[in-house]
Amino acid sequence: MTDTDAAFEPVAARIESDLTELSGIRAPDHPGWTREVFSEPYRDARDWVAARMRSVGLEVRRDGAGNVVGVLPGRSPAAPALVTGSHTDTVNGGGRFDGTVGVLGALEVVRLLRESGTQLTRDLVVVDFLGEESNDWGLSCLGSRAVAGELRAEDLDRRDGAGQRLGDRYAGFGLDPAAVLAERWLTRRPLHGYLELHIEQGPLLEQRGAAIGVVTAIAGIERLLASFEGRPDHAGTRPMHDRRDAMVAAAHAVLAVHREGCGAPPPGVATATQVVNDRHAPNVVPASVRLRAEMRGIDAGWLAATKQRLAQDILTQAQALGVDVTFDWTSDNKIVPSARSIQDAVARAAARAGLAWEAVPSGATHDAAHLAPWCPMGMIFVPSRAGRSHCPEEWTDITDIAAGVRALADTLRALDAQEDLVADSR
Amino acid sequence: MTDTDAAFEPVAARIESDLTELSGIRAPDHPGWTREVFSEPYRDARDWVAARMRSVGLEVRRDGAGNVVGVLPGRSPAAPALVTGSHTDTVNGGGRFDGTVGVLGALEVVRLLRESGTQLTRDLVVVDFLGEESNDWGLSCLGSRAVAGELRAEDLDRRDGAGQRLGDRYAGFGLDPAAVLAERWLTRRPLHGYLELHIEQGPLLEQRGAAIGVVTAIAGIERLLASFEGRPDHAGTRPMHDRRDAMVAAAHAVLAVHREGCGAPPPGVATATQVVNDRHAPNVVPASVRLRAEMRGIDAGWLAATKQRLAQDILTQAQALGVDVTFDWTSDNKIVPSARSIQDAVARAAARAGLAWEAVPSGATHDAAHLAPWCPMGMIFVPSRAGRSHCPEEWTDITDIAAGVRALADTLRALDAQEDLVADSR
Repeated sequence: MTDTDAAFEPVAARIESDLTELSGIRAPDHPGWTREVFSEPYRDARDWVAARMRSVGLEVRRDGAGNVVGVLPGRSPAAPALVTGSHTDTVNGGGRFDGTVGVLGALEVVRLLRESGTQLTRDLVVVDFLGEESNDWGLSCLGSRAVAGELRAEDLDRRDGAGQRLGDRYAGFGLDPAAVLAERWLTRRPLHGYLELHIEQGPLLEQRGAAIGVVTAIAGIERLLASFEGRPDHAGTRPMHDRRDAMVAAAHAVLAVHREGCGAPPPGVATATQVVNDRHAPNVVPASVRLRAEMRGIDAGWLAATKQRLAQDILTQAQALGVDVTFDWTSDNKIVPSARSIQDAVARAAARAGLAWEAVPSGATHDAAHLAPWCPMGMIFVPSRAGRSHCPEEWTDITDIAAGVRALADTLRALDAQEDLVADSR
Repeated sequence: MTDTDAAFEPVAARIESDLTELSGIRAPDHPGWTREVFSEPYRDARDWVAARMRSVGLEVRRDGAGNVVGVLPGRSPAAPALVTGSHTDTVNGGGRFDGTVGVLGALEVVRLLRESGTQLTRDLVVVDFLGEESNDWGLSCLGSRAVAGELRAEDLDRRDGAGQRLGDRYAGFGLDPAAVLAERWLTRRPLHGYLELHIEQGPLLEQRGAAIGVVTAIAGIERLLASFEGRPDHAGTRPMHDRRDAMVAAAHAVLAVHREGCGAPPPGVATATQVVNDRHAPNVVPASVRLRAEMRGIDAGWLAATKQRLAQDILTQAQALGVDVTFDWTSDNKIVPSARSIQDAVARAAARAGLAWEAVPSGATHDAAHLAPWCPMGMIFVPSRAGRSHCPEEWTDITDIAAGVRALADTLRALDAQEDLVADSR
């Protein structure tokens, strides 16, 4: 891009119309805008996305991992392609903007490119990744994981709460599990870069009055499952000093997690998301309680230290109560920094369009995290009203979405013109 | 009874044989010795109890409330009857002694009376009360409640976790719900007294080396359902200071309940038995959490004060976190003192038999609590190994059971001879 290129002017009404149509495809008996991976409304929505991709002029295919992929051919088919996109699945009771803004925004970019007669040098690949949201198999970002070669054969044996194998759900959705594992296209061809438009899902942009968030890094996530085992005594007859109460130990752990979060360097957070006592009875001292918690941050030192402090703190409290505790830690995501070159390009595009921008971290994880090992990665955030997300109240003004699409289009054009984003980062 | 009456010598082998036979009737696919109210094994067990009652010489009937009632006629049919008994249902995963010891012990008393040619003045009524244990309808002591006139028509509309009405479960068990409500025999004829043999379900007798517990009172129970409502934010993107985390508020409440219990005058206890977050997701700040807790004690002043302190403490903590909380308190049982006259009679019988006895409270509730408004009530406890109950490890030595049966038999004979237990208490 040069400063003489005309700025793109996204047509808000077209984006809004797409958003309205897509959000209408949802599970009618669920709250909010529910379109969970492998569900019937999700199947319908993917057909809708593929058709809409075709109608804006993309060459569309479904890859073996279930992603819907549309290609706008560039002038130089041999040049490493630019990739953009996001996802269109939602959580149960979720909203209308999380993910869909990135897919529908990319379609508007394609429209703008074609209407302005702009042919990029590189192929522009628009991807609607399969199943980005957390699911019962404990494996988010199914589609981007698969194309990055991060989905393993044993992952297909994971079972959800109803006991169903992930592999069987793929098959029931018309996807051959062997093909899902084999579809590792990110690992097979050089790509120029990946840029994803997404709602912030947090309050920072709104609080700072910024229209555009230049994402600096995607937070790493450490997940904890702590299992407390005490003794199931009669709650009416067992003296307080002679108990081994697993619920009390778990309550101490909830507060320990909260303290770690409150003491974290921003944007670090820590959340106890669930407490379950497995064998509840109204007159029994809880003996078996499980706590689920997660810690997120972009400071690897803090993440490592908080794990250690938490384990020690929870163990000490449990031991004082005569309660055994075991820890099961999983690193759901490593910290993933955005490419410096793409951050700069987004900031320049925003400034050129007169849009206030802020450098912000992403507390949520995204498909982009799985693209990052294979090509320079960046993300553009647009504001979320009151920071709400994963709920029916999730909202981003259409003017903010249009501004994000403009930044996306301008940045993609600029990145297309750069020779080598990795080299530009050095 | 006079001091020249021969002491009864229970035959441990007979009691043990009955215990073994009855404990064999249980749900095969459940842990421990499971015989829940309205289940098939419970139906079979009630047939077994009725047959065993007949075989020891009782006149047996099923009352309209589902209790199995056996009568050993006395010399003076017009004299107010003596009642003894307990229950034979167990909790899921429960043990072999809770309740059954009181029913089978009463049968051994009947054998001893008949073998020794002792005919009491009064009818001796042995009752196996229906469904004493806590159940999904939140209404323990179904049979004793009913005969005490405490079961209300609206109680039959309560639904369990599967949505089934209590009234329908009665009907499915062959009991006419209208007849259950009408069967209020406790309220219709004067009774001389009620004495129940039961395992302690706590550790006090074992710790104090006593064979017999003279129960002073049955604890009152206050139950709390606290509902916390916060805001379901994304756990990765919402800063710690801007959250309304219902789980953190609930954790503070668990610890507040625990503190109240630890500060209670013995035998007061307080237990948070359950924490549930209704809409759990691994990356959402918990917004809707329910806490169930119970407080028990025999000190009405403490129970009332602890309710007040807890409500204030929980509310203050929740407000500081921006979390709304509502309290739903139910008084499951008022404090029920045993009749002084029966306590004295049990203590005398124990002393005469050379059995060490201790005055102890009952932290658990019992059918006896529902008999107490209608006639003088007393209970005899026998030791529970390590105080364990409501679990497969529940255990009372057969020699301790036999000692309890001896105290039961001797006390019933002594009470039978007293003119008026209420007057004797004055």
